[in-house]
Amino acid sequence: MSSIASAPSQDTLLGPLPTSLPAVERRAALPAGFLAGAATAGIKPSGRPDLMVVATTRGPAAAAAVFTPNPFAAAPVRLSREHLAQTGGSGGPSACGWARAVISTSGSANAATGPDGDLDQLTIAGFLATALRAPVEEVLCLSTGVIGVRLPAERIGAAVTTLVPDGLSALPSALDAAALALMTTDTTAKLATTSLQLPDADGRPVAITVAGIAKGVGMIHPRMATMLAVVLTDATIEPDVLAGLLRPAAARTWDQLSVDGDTSTNDSAVVLASGAAATATVEAGSAGAAALGRAIEAVARDLARQQAADGEGATTLITCAVSGAPDDADARAIARAVVSSSLVKTAVLGRDPNWGRIAAAAGNARAADAAVLEAAGLRADEAASRAGRPVALDPDRLRIAIAGHVVYDGRAGGPVPFDRAAVGAAMTPPEVLVRLDLGSGSGRGEAFGCDLTEGYVRENAEYTT
Amino acid sequence: MSSIASAPSQDTLLGPLPTSLPAVERRAALPAGFLAGAATAGIKPSGRPDLMVVATTRGPAAAAAVFTPNPFAAAPVRLSREHLAQTGGSGGPSACGWARAVISTSGSANAATGPDGDLDQLTIAGFLATALRAPVEEVLCLSTGVIGVRLPAERIGAAVTTLVPDGLSALPSALDAAALALMTTDTTAKLATTSLQLPDADGRPVAITVAGIAKGVGMIHPRMATMLAVVLTDATIEPDVLAGLLRPAAARTWDQLSVDGDTSTNDSAVVLASGAAATATVEAGSAGAAALGRAIEAVARDLARQQAADGEGATTLITCAVSGAPDDADARAIARAVVSSSLVKTAVLGRDPNWGRIAAAAGNARAADAAVLEAAGLRADEAASRAGRPVALDPDRLRIAIAGHVVYDGRAGGPVPFDRAAVGAAMTPPEVLVRLDLGSGSGRGEAFGCDLTEGYVRENAEYTT
Repeated sequence: MSSIASAPSQDTLLGPLPTSLPAVERRAALPAGFLAGAATAGIKPSGRPDLMVVATTRGPAAAAAVFTPNPFAAAPVRLSREHLAQTGGSGGPSACGWARAVISTSGSANAATGPDGDLDQLTIAGFLATALRAPVEEVLCLSTGVIGVRLPAERIGAAVTTLVPDGLSALPSALDAAALALMTTDTTAKLATTSLQLPDADGRPVAITVAGIAKGVGMIHPRMATMLAVVLTDATIEPDVLAGLLRPAAARTWDQLSVDGDTSTNDSAVVLASGAAATATVEAGSAGAAALGRAIEAVARDLARQQAADGEGATTLITCAVSGAPDDADARAIARAVVSSSLVKTAVLGRDPNWGRIAAAAGNARAADAAVLEAAGLRADEAASRAGRPVALDPDRLRIAIAGHVVYDGRAGGPVPFDRAAVGAAMTPPEVLVRLDLGSGSGRGEAFGCDLTEGYVRENAEYTT
Repeated sequence: MSSIASAPSQDTLLGPLPTSLPAVERRAALPAGFLAGAATAGIKPSGRPDLMVVATTRGPAAAAAVFTPNPFAAAPVRLSREHLAQTGGSGGPSACGWARAVISTSGSANAATGPDGDLDQLTIAGFLATALRAPVEEVLCLSTGVIGVRLPAERIGAAVTTLVPDGLSALPSALDAAALALMTTDTTAKLATTSLQLPDADGRPVAITVAGIAKGVGMIHPRMATMLAVVLTDATIEPDVLAGLLRPAAARTWDQLSVDGDTSTNDSAVVLASGAAATATVEAGSAGAAALGRAIEAVARDLARQQAADGEGATTLITCAVSGAPDDADARAIARAVVSSSLVKTAVLGRDPNWGRIAAAAGNARAADAAVLEAAGLRADEAASRAGRPVALDPDRLRIAIAGHVVYDGRAGGPVPFDRAAVGAAMTPPEVLVRLDLGSGSGRGEAFGCDLTEGYVRENAEYTT
């Protein structure tokens, strides 16, 4: 799946594509001010690395996070929210505060484990805090794996004590190792890195790195679908300003990712900014904030694409790019409905240019939740009134293109004659681009999914998550 | 799949089940005043019967219908709405009017076929109207099959002219034949019949029949998910009163059915009341209306269960019954979320008592659309404000039972120790019952789904719908 491009090939049939973001590279880079490391604590029965730590070198970093809205939010999610609130930020939908480290365990979700699970998670955070000589509230926790199974807190504590601080490293390979330790059913580690320049206190440009790692790849659906992502940067920024960059970036990327329509109990994306590059503080609303926001979004988008491409059992990334919508929120809702449709997913598997299924799925689109709409820039009252509602679509203005071929044009009577075999042949892995233009405005959006295969069914019938 | 019971085995672990409705039988019965028949018009490449007609014997019957909300509504849906509006009823969400016949064609959906498709559908209705010497607006049309392919109107006209009137019959076997001709990817015909007594003009009881046929079984999801159903009764009732019985019955049955999360362009359920049993007119709000409503709901529920059990590729019906919710609408939303989850569906396939996936799915529940909530009895403003919104769920009050075993009790700390092998062994076809009690009120609801199998994936990767 590493062969997917960071942007789909330009398809100008229906006008420009939604996204124009900085280029990213699929490699590890550790921004200044961070160390990383991984270990095997024995949570995964496979004996693979299952513990990952990212820590700052010079005190707390500004931190922002988005978490699952599932009421069954796991112990690590609840503890991280609480810790962010305690360090002076907020624990709400745009959680932010200060953090010195992130610890992630994989193999057990530590979800639905009751008060014991909460205590286990606090114990684990405590081991790391002690090893780092940091207050425990400056430790954020992530975890994924089977629901309802407790974490082996003592064994994890032993592994943490061995790893921290001497096993942590500032080498890029340490972030590679961390990305590997995040994986559960993923087949590849997911890494994305971009860079930008921000001014220092004297206005001179300073090179800044934004690097992210993530894992997928089941129980993934719109509404913060990551499951887990950690993005690091050496820029200098206050937590609330960082949160203001993360939320809209997540709304346009991870909230537009669907593998199987299930929203996990553990979804978490955390961004840490170390300030180690010695830029001037990035102020809200500044050109620097816009540039940093675009860099974070570029990394998030590319990680989301890698997650969709590595969806359980998937052979093909499905990107749906929508233009001509009344606004961006409507465009994103329709794109998400298309990539979430089981019938579109199986049609892509079958290399079947079945625009009827695409049209039917688009017609069923529902607006995102209020929090996502608000994060993407809608006013609170507007977000509340649109959340979850059907999205209007005029079949007589809709155009559809599959893999570079226009197959439906509502303004020309509907179905467009096309060479079925040729379009089917163009629907090849690693990626199929589905384009819709609604002919009703200038709103744009995209979403990322994957085909539904017998492999997905086998994997989930046989594996207890 | 005919082996599924009309009600799941009583599971009293978490209290009574949501539904208490009249018993139904899985057999054809043609209520007085109706004829039925089927033919092969050559729409299906398989050469199987693909044309079905139900007609009244004595002028128009009171008619009520619910249709897909998909903006890509097919030509037969649009024509039927228009005809109901023309015969003095309404074309809205609770469409009703008068009808002398229903014609259904299977093999082509006649969806997204543009103005040509509309003309084809009107031509077909005209053939039947001519054969019956009835006004064309008294003909209702249904169709299912591949989207974007035109119907062979002339061939269908020839088949109609041969079938009508002499090939129509009042024998139950004629409704059997009609049910077979509705099928596309269905493996079994779907029939359900119940009876009740209603008073005649002198208050003496008259036996009344309510009989329904339906088809599934792909592109099926909440919001009028049938795809097609025709319910017939010999009761005497005005169209608007009949519509007032159909909408809440559909909200509790077909709107609670999910095979694959896709809402079709052609979903239609039609109820016709011939008045041939010579009962007194069933008045709105009367005891007779309540009894007839329950009979219609019992038939609709059983057809929905048959449709779910015969879901494409399915081996097992999944019934989720929810109690203890703040109200019935919340209970239904949670039940629907559980049966719609790909991970719950694959867990059932794998006989895996994976309550974590059930809890996570319940936590992601969203209220139904405003029209469905209103049909189920909510005030318009309440329906509008709740539509599509997340449903509240308290993990600390939730209890879950799978196939008769309690596996999670939030009030007792969460996971309940259980014998995984024993519960897995109880998760056998033809049906798995998942019970949730929210401990937060007296609201109840249920939903019907099926397991997700490699067969579903194969069928939809290889078949163009």
